[in-house]
Amino acid sequence: MAELTRFGISMGSALLGQFDQLIERKGYVNRSEAIRDLVRAALVEDQWERGDEETVGTVTIVYDHHTRDLAEKLTEHQHSHHDAIISALHVHLDHDHCLEVAVVRGSAEQVRRLADELIGTKGVKHGKLAMTTTGEGLR
Amino acid sequence: MAELTRFGISMGSALLGQFDQLIERKGYVNRSEAIRDLVRAALVEDQWERGDEETVGTVTIVYDHHTRDLAEKLTEHQHSHHDAIISALHVHLDHDHCLEVAVVRGSAEQVRRLADELIGTKGVKHGKLAMTTTGEGLR
Amino acid sequence: MAELTRFGISMGSALLGQFDQLIERKGYVNRSEAIRDLVRAALVEDQWERGDEETVGTVTIVYDHHTRDLAEKLTEHQHSHHDAIISALHVHLDHDHCLEVAVVRGSAEQVRRLADELIGTKGVKHGKLAMTTTGEGLR
Amino acid sequence: MAELTRFGISMGSALLGQFDQLIERKGYVNRSEAIRDLVRAALVEDQWERGDEETVGTVTIVYDHHTRDLAEKLTEHQHSHHDAIISALHVHLDHDHCLEVAVVRGSAEQVRRLADELIGTKGVKHGKLAMTTTGEGLR
Repeated sequence: MAELTRFGISMGSALLGQFDQLIERKGYVNRSEAIRDLVRAALVEDQWERGDEETVGTVTIVYDHHTRDLAEKLTEHQHSHHDAIISALHVHLDHDHCLEVAVVRGSAEQVRRLADELIGTKGVKHGKLAMTTTGEGLR
Repeated sequence: MAELTRFGISMGSALLGQFDQLIERKGYVNRSEAIRDLVRAALVEDQWERGDEETVGTVTIVYDHHTRDLAEKLTEHQHSHHDAIISALHVHLDHDHCLEVAVVRGSAEQVRRLADELIGTKGVKHGKLAMTTTGEGLR
Repeated sequence: MAELTRFGISMGSALLGQFDQLIERKGYVNRSEAIRDLVRAALVEDQWERGDEETVGTVTIVYDHHTRDLAEKLTEHQHSHHDAIISALHVHLDHDHCLEVAVVRGSAEQVRRLADELIGTKGVKHGKLAMTTTGEGLR
Repeated sequence: MAELTRFGISMGSALLGQFDQLIERKGYVNRSEAIRDLVRAALVEDQWERGDEETVGTVTIVYDHHTRDLAEKLTEHQHSHHDAIISALHVHLDHDHCLEVAVVRGSAEQVRRLADELIGTKGVKHGKLAMTTTGEGLR
């Protein structure tokens, strides 16, 4: 069980009023939860900027499955990093298009490199890396 | 089969030299493929800024599965948007942490709203929306 | 004088410990100031996503001043939006390159459009829009 | 005078049609110019990710000039980096708010650190770093 600390912060009433509106619109139940989320997002961003710690990213790619040899190439890329790719989800978007999301674990640099490889594969139309976290230490 | 057009572009030699280095590092097989990727990325970005067309996003969240009622709340959010969520992948990161990626289809605004809901759920430690595309028209 | 409100938030000790390290590295004097900054950044981001309120952006462009007619074209663009452009700073980077930053006020959409025009002008090598705020309501 | 290279690229007609619409909306005069801009943007982004080469950024901050000692602190930060800060522009947004843009030259890491310092100064309400370039090699 994580130990909880309680501390006070002061904020201008106008700023707080706007923040309360924002968190209501975003569906937060209270200020603590919204502020913890801002803090965690800042920590994850910093982690990715520094680039050394172990982290997790998801790589989303969209491609036309009719492209010759594409599926094999993607599988090959993924297997040559099999220790880094935890899992992958495949979705059929329409008659032609597939979307694949791979969950990748490693240093920020490794995850970025693998994302570049997958996104740069001939036939991949679009790709995006979402930089997230192992969750450790963010309690 | 998509019809291909061929056209010429001019570029300063210094710029082209640097571009060739970049695309080699990123693993592209040729300039056409790299430029098509830049063009597609610009189109997808524009689509998300304008916000009206149908598009696809993946929402990645990391959470501690011990958080009371969290799994039910996430399932509820997803079911109340069951027409928009195509599929979801669940990964066990460690003893405590789960990662979930949901593939969501809809207008940019709908996808953003659903991402906000999932990321704002109490107990979710970190979340990210990757804005991608249905692939249509990007051939 | 802005009225101040004080309220308590709770946070896991591990998370707080990491946050304290981050804010020390970033040079903040205390948690309140760091959290107010995160809150203001979230509000400004939301304002730019919604796009209707009056806001402020700075458009930075880098160009080669030898490019034929470029200076006149940039001046023209700026004058055709003279009510939106508050001020501009011009820096000589080296023998060839100039950097110009224009401070622009208007709706998010107007500021984005003007940024696109300036960045898209033939001869401009690189451009970036920084989305900030009039400061109102963020006290 | 920079040497020009001309080369051909092939693109699906549907993709090209959408790109032509986008570049018209963004005000580009031709495809070459739009593609050169995408290429330069990709190079600048890569430069900031690698972080070692000399580069240029602009740091925009918005603050209330009534904040005690703020002007002195900002001046102090800027002077302790006087070799990196090339120039700065100051704008009076309204009765209370000032906007300041500093043009900073150095390694990506240095520029980021100085941006953190300025943005983290007590009283600064919002800040943004725009990552651009010295322009060298991007011809």
